[in-house]
Amino acid sequence: MPVPHLAAALSGPILDLERCIVDAMASIEHWLRNQWQLHPVPFYCSVDLRNSGFKLAPVDTNLFPGGFNNLNPGFMPLCVQAMMAAVEKICADARSILLIPESHTRNIFYLQNIATLQAIMRHAGLNIRIGSLLPEISVATTVALPDGMKITLEPVKRRGNRLVTEDFDPCAVLLNNDLSTGIPPILENLEQIVIPPLRAGWATRRKSQHFAAYDNVAGQFGDLIGIDPWLINPFFASCGKINFRAKNGEDCVASTVDEILHEIQEKYDQYGVKEAPFVIVKADAGTYGMGIMTVKNGSEVRTLNRRQRNKMAVLKGGLEVTEVLVQEGVYTFESINEAVTEPVIYMIDHYVVGGFYRVHTGRGIDENLNAPGMHFVPLAFEDSCVLPDREARPGSSANRFYAYGVIARLALLAAAQELEKSGERTGATVAR
Amino acid sequence: MPVPHLAAALSGPILDLERCIVDAMASIEHWLRNQWQLHPVPFYCSVDLRNSGFKLAPVDTNLFPGGFNNLNPGFMPLCVQAMMAAVEKICADARSILLIPESHTRNIFYLQNIATLQAIMRHAGLNIRIGSLLPEISVATTVALPDGMKITLEPVKRRGNRLVTEDFDPCAVLLNNDLSTGIPPILENLEQIVIPPLRAGWATRRKSQHFAAYDNVAGQFGDLIGIDPWLINPFFASCGKINFRAKNGEDCVASTVDEILHEIQEKYDQYGVKEAPFVIVKADAGTYGMGIMTVKNGSEVRTLNRRQRNKMAVLKGGLEVTEVLVQEGVYTFESINEAVTEPVIYMIDHYVVGGFYRVHTGRGIDENLNAPGMHFVPLAFEDSCVLPDREARPGSSANRFYAYGVIARLALLAAAQELEKSGERTGATVAR
Repeated sequence: MPVPHLAAALSGPILDLERCIVDAMASIEHWLRNQWQLHPVPFYCSVDLRNSGFKLAPVDTNLFPGGFNNLNPGFMPLCVQAMMAAVEKICADARSILLIPESHTRNIFYLQNIATLQAIMRHAGLNIRIGSLLPEISVATTVALPDGMKITLEPVKRRGNRLVTEDFDPCAVLLNNDLSTGIPPILENLEQIVIPPLRAGWATRRKSQHFAAYDNVAGQFGDLIGIDPWLINPFFASCGKINFRAKNGEDCVASTVDEILHEIQEKYDQYGVKEAPFVIVKADAGTYGMGIMTVKNGSEVRTLNRRQRNKMAVLKGGLEVTEVLVQEGVYTFESINEAVTEPVIYMIDHYVVGGFYRVHTGRGIDENLNAPGMHFVPLAFEDSCVLPDREARPGSSANRFYAYGVIARLALLAAAQELEKSGERTGATVAR
Repeated sequence: MPVPHLAAALSGPILDLERCIVDAMASIEHWLRNQWQLHPVPFYCSVDLRNSGFKLAPVDTNLFPGGFNNLNPGFMPLCVQAMMAAVEKICADARSILLIPESHTRNIFYLQNIATLQAIMRHAGLNIRIGSLLPEISVATTVALPDGMKITLEPVKRRGNRLVTEDFDPCAVLLNNDLSTGIPPILENLEQIVIPPLRAGWATRRKSQHFAAYDNVAGQFGDLIGIDPWLINPFFASCGKINFRAKNGEDCVASTVDEILHEIQEKYDQYGVKEAPFVIVKADAGTYGMGIMTVKNGSEVRTLNRRQRNKMAVLKGGLEVTEVLVQEGVYTFESINEAVTEPVIYMIDHYVVGGFYRVHTGRGIDENLNAPGMHFVPLAFEDSCVLPDREARPGSSANRFYAYGVIARLALLAAAQELEKSGERTGATVAR
């Protein structure tokens, strides 16, 4: 199997970072162990990373992970074991769970994700059924999947304050739906536990709040292992009251872009990085790579053409973009057969259960790889992320995977703190 | 790889049992999840099982497991993840642990177990060093192992109420020493946490107390999935005040043997089993297969010759046997190329992390396979024990391994209850 490699010219510094992380394993694990005692961890999570050789950082933290089907099937036992731990913590007494997926009935890859998630939970000993919010699912509908699996989508209904299907009254509701289009009333004020809580959805969540929490986590982690936190943390700022179509709020975005480009350039000079800085402008509430663009100069924001404006203005489900995050772009210098790749790490509870590379042939090293219509090829990690080897030669995949797992867990910890804070704001009694 | 098979004539009933267990997976996992909330689980454990086709039962539960080196290296991540969970529960704040092994410097297999355990704990992010109780280890001594691993044994000493080595003051002490020869004073009244507690050692532990707890667990489990608990539970009774050399107490043993043989025969008649019942007489406090014999009639106990008496009278470390357990023998009808095999299941915290078969060419189907001088061949399970498949054809290894993992966890639960009780007796403040 082809293994991603880093562009050779840049391999020095990242190997230093990787080496720092592997050498500090005992401190890191001890520190993380304590953090998980302080901050209730989200049920599950995936983190998109970018590895530019000199820098390894999270760029997206997904609390409704949608690619369990892309993981190495050899690590299924690891998923099952972690799921047992997750269920034990959040709803030990639950025996039946209703899984609410995204409303894409036609996306076979996504349905394979749901089937895999269902299999993991079944093996953890749960009765798990799949409830669809789609109006066209009016009777239980079984869909056969290409790999021989099949799933049954059942119409959900409300019975008092319980979410049920025709013959299934679950103890808990597990969301794999990011609520981008808002919180459906049928999910509000349920007496069953809802995992993760509704406020983890994009109806309320903001990327800027996540990266503010990550900023804090990265600072502490930098102190812990003695590195400049910038090596794992992209600069960012947010702008509100934007209307791309009406050209409102562009000045804020343009000047923020220039400020961040300037900050990046200073760091690039410090570390001798020759590349041109770039930033990513993306919707503060959103996912699926919609409302996202790469910018190398603030003036580009002011001179968007109509097509570009429309692309930036609308999110999944047709929602208008009104707040944006301006974030340091992190080059990806990982490639497989010259195709650009970025790693995605999967966690259940605080356990790293696997990951895969998104491999794109048609994208540049400064572009978002998770975009609509972008048919990336998933390449499952062959090894786990928990067996670093201090004796290994530089560049060993075991050590790189371990470093990925550490940075992904920092993003997970940031998500935990973010949900704690948003819980305080909404007066939630359940911490997650 | 050759896979153990069950003698064909007896495959019917066990497949019924396996099927019952796999079908009840959701109930079983839910029930176990609740049990782990009620009873603090031992840190680690291995369970020897016997599979006679009509019956699948634990015959020994080891709280100081000594064969981690025999597990499939492919499941190392599962071990590391479970170790993280175990450490988090018992000593979340620990960053350094001193491992106290058995005092066999020459047993390479055992040292490989210690090296594997050290590797698992290192990958879970712990600083782990190995302290030897052997007087001849007066300086740090590195031993190279055949597989390229090496371990360093360090002399331990007492500093106040702390167990330390020359330059290492650990947060916790992990025992992999079963304390068969008594509790060394150097381990008593430590201010560090000792895992598992000293009372888990054979200096205080009794097999009869374990199997009394198992009796209770098996009864509840039988009710849960609707099976006769005898299918997973061997009859037993204990006799005290025995002196094999002086022929004291033999009458108790002989009559107990006959009673149990009679009870077994009734069950064999009920289930149509044609084999002759047998019992195992073994020391109530002990391990390593010393002080153990197979008996098919009470009169055999009265007519032991001198060699047999001596063999039964003495345990590891020269201790005299004064109490014995008389336990229903469970035939092993699993074999690989006609060699008798028995499964051994490994757990860390309450997670089943793997197992292996003990394969013996020179032993009978009614003999103990873990005996001194018995050079069994370990055959690692190729699959995990957590992925049963209801659709699989009868006899699939995935389902058999799952059944093993369930019965082993019942024995682990019994050990948890046993330690709780012994903790109450000794007034221990730490439940495990």
